[in-house]
Amino acid sequence: MDAYVGIDLGGTNIKVGLFTPKMALIDQDSSHTEVERGFDHVMEQIAAAVRAVCDRNGLSAAGVRAVGIGCPGPIDVARGLVVVAPNFPGWRDLPVRDTLRGKFGGVPTVLENDANVAAYAEFRVGAGRGAGSLVMITLGTGIGGGIVIDGHVHRGATDTAGELGHVTVEVGGRQCGCGRRGCLEAYASATGTVARFREALGQGRASSLAVSGAAPDDITAKDIFDAAAAGDALAAEIVDVTARYLAVGCDVIVNLIDPDVIVLTGGMVAAGELLMGPVERYARELFFPRPKTHTRLALTELGGDAGIIGAGLCAQDLFETSAS
Amino acid sequence: MDAYVGIDLGGTNIKVGLFTPKMALIDQDSSHTEVERGFDHVMEQIAAAVRAVCDRNGLSAAGVRAVGIGCPGPIDVARGLVVVAPNFPGWRDLPVRDTLRGKFGGVPTVLENDANVAAYAEFRVGAGRGAGSLVMITLGTGIGGGIVIDGHVHRGATDTAGELGHVTVEVGGRQCGCGRRGCLEAYASATGTVARFREALGQGRASSLAVSGAAPDDITAKDIFDAAAAGDALAAEIVDVTARYLAVGCDVIVNLIDPDVIVLTGGMVAAGELLMGPVERYARELFFPRPKTHTRLALTELGGDAGIIGAGLCAQDLFETSAS
Repeated sequence: MDAYVGIDLGGTNIKVGLFTPKMALIDQDSSHTEVERGFDHVMEQIAAAVRAVCDRNGLSAAGVRAVGIGCPGPIDVARGLVVVAPNFPGWRDLPVRDTLRGKFGGVPTVLENDANVAAYAEFRVGAGRGAGSLVMITLGTGIGGGIVIDGHVHRGATDTAGELGHVTVEVGGRQCGCGRRGCLEAYASATGTVARFREALGQGRASSLAVSGAAPDDITAKDIFDAAAAGDALAAEIVDVTARYLAVGCDVIVNLIDPDVIVLTGGMVAAGELLMGPVERYARELFFPRPKTHTRLALTELGGDAGIIGAGLCAQDLFETSAS
Repeated sequence: MDAYVGIDLGGTNIKVGLFTPKMALIDQDSSHTEVERGFDHVMEQIAAAVRAVCDRNGLSAAGVRAVGIGCPGPIDVARGLVVVAPNFPGWRDLPVRDTLRGKFGGVPTVLENDANVAAYAEFRVGAGRGAGSLVMITLGTGIGGGIVIDGHVHRGATDTAGELGHVTVEVGGRQCGCGRRGCLEAYASATGTVARFREALGQGRASSLAVSGAAPDDITAKDIFDAAAAGDALAAEIVDVTARYLAVGCDVIVNLIDPDVIVLTGGMVAAGELLMGPVERYARELFFPRPKTHTRLALTELGGDAGIIGAGLCAQDLFETSAS
C-alpha cells in the first residue's frame, strides 16, 4: 500500500499522520518535542515517529509517496528552511526539508509554514470546504494566520503573508512581543487578554479572580473566559474588548482580501459562543454591505488535526505535481 | 487595422484610449463627465467619445476587438454592474457593461473597478513590471487600492478586496466618510490631512497658512505640502503624521498580502519626496525582516493614463481568453 505522511512540528508536540492515497487518515501519533536537545535531535525524533507509525501499519519506507511538514515561524519554502522559529531557541536558516528527505531515503518532501498548512486543510476538507478563498486566524498565545486564494496557499513574496497578529490596530498603542506597538496580537491574543486583565486589577478594579487586588501569577485566558461566563463583570468587560479587536482583525482581512470565509482556530476558540458571538456581531457591524451578508465566519472543524491533515495534503499535491 | 479600446470613467472626466493589438497607445481623448445629466447620458457620452477616437483614426466599429472600462465604486464584475459609485449620485446596480456593449454592436466588453484596472496596468507595463505581485495605493480625496496576485487582479469574494482606505488603524478613532471610525482614510487621505491641519489651527497652533487663527475655506492638501516645503512647522508636522499613517498602511499590506511591490499613486504623490521619503523610512522601520529588504515601494509610472491602459489590457485579456 502507498501512503502520504503529514507532520506537524510544534514547540510542545510532534504530530505525525499517515494517509491513504485518497487522504483518509489511517493512523496518527503525538510525542513531546525535545526542543532543548537541539535541531539534530528533533529531526531524528520526527524520523523515528514516522518510522514507528509506518511500521505499525505494515508500511515500508518505499511505500511513502511524499512527506509534508508544517513548521512555525518564517519559512523559506523554496529552499526548505526554517528561517526563525520563536519556540525553538537558536533555530535559524535550518534545512528541515532536506534533512528529513535524507532520513526518508530521498522521498519527495515539502516544508510549509504551520499556519498555512492548517489553513489549507480547513480550505480543502474543513470549515472552508466549497469556498473559493479562505483566511484562517489562529488565536492562541500569539495570533497567526494563513491565507488560501483561488485554491492555493498565498505565501506572499517573502513567505510572510498572513501575519494577521501584526497588523496595527492602534498606532503607538500597546507594546507587542514583536518589538513594535499597537499590533492586534498585543490586544486580542491570550497573552494580550491576560495582560489587559492584570492591568485593570492593578488599576484597582475588582474581580472574583483577584487575590487581594492581584491576579494569581498563573492566571490564563481560560480563567478569564470562565470567570466571564460565571458572571464576573471585569472578566466580561475584558473579553468584550478582546472580541471587539478580533472583529477589527476580521474587518481588516475583509477590506484587504475579501475571502469567502474566515476560520477561527487555536486555543482561544475553546471559549466558544462567549467569545465568538460578540466577534461575529461586532464584525458584521464593521463589514461593508456586500461582505456583511456574504462573508462567513466559522470555527475550525479540524481543530488540532489541521496541521497533520494540511501537511498530508501538501505532500499529496507535491506527489501529484511531480507525477504529472 | 484591429484595436482595443480602454475607457476610464471618473466623476470628473471620461478618458478613452485606443490601442493596437500589441497594446501600443495610438490615440486618446478626455472629456468632462456630465454626471448631472444621468446614467443614460453618460453612457452615450462614452459611446460618442469612443466613436470619435475610432473615426479620427480610420477605424470602423467592426475593427474593435474588445472594450474595457474601469469605473469607481463597488463593481459586480460577473454581472457587469456598477453597484454604487460615490461620485455618481443615484447610480445603483447599473448595467454599464451591457449598455456599452449594446452601443458598440455587441463587441466583447469588460467592466472592472477603476483601482483594480490601474493596479493591473502598473503591474503589466508600469512601476510593477517584472514583479509577481503588486498592491497599488491611490492617495487622493479618499484612499483606494488594487491588488494583483500571481498575475491576476484579486477582486475578492464580493469584488471589494483592496479597500485599503478602510482598514482600521485606530480603534474608535477619527470619524471616516464611510460612517465608521479610525479608518486609514480618515487620517492619511488629502481630506484627512486637511482636517487634521484645521483642527490644529483650531487648537491655537500657528501657521503661515492661517488667517487670524483659521485656515482659508478652500485650503487643500497641496497648500499644506507646499507650506511644509517652505518651512512651515505645523504643516511639516501634519505631513509627517500623514506619512506615519501611510507607512502603517503599507505595513498592514505587507503583513497580510506581502507583495513584491507597493505602488503609490493619486493626487497626493505630486508632493514627491516630501511625503514619500518619510513614508518609505517609517515603513522600513515597521516591516518585518524579510519584507524590510525585499518589498519595493514605488511611485506610479503611468500616472493618469493607468486607467485607460489597464482597461485596454483587460479588453485584450478578454479577447485572448475568448479566442483561445
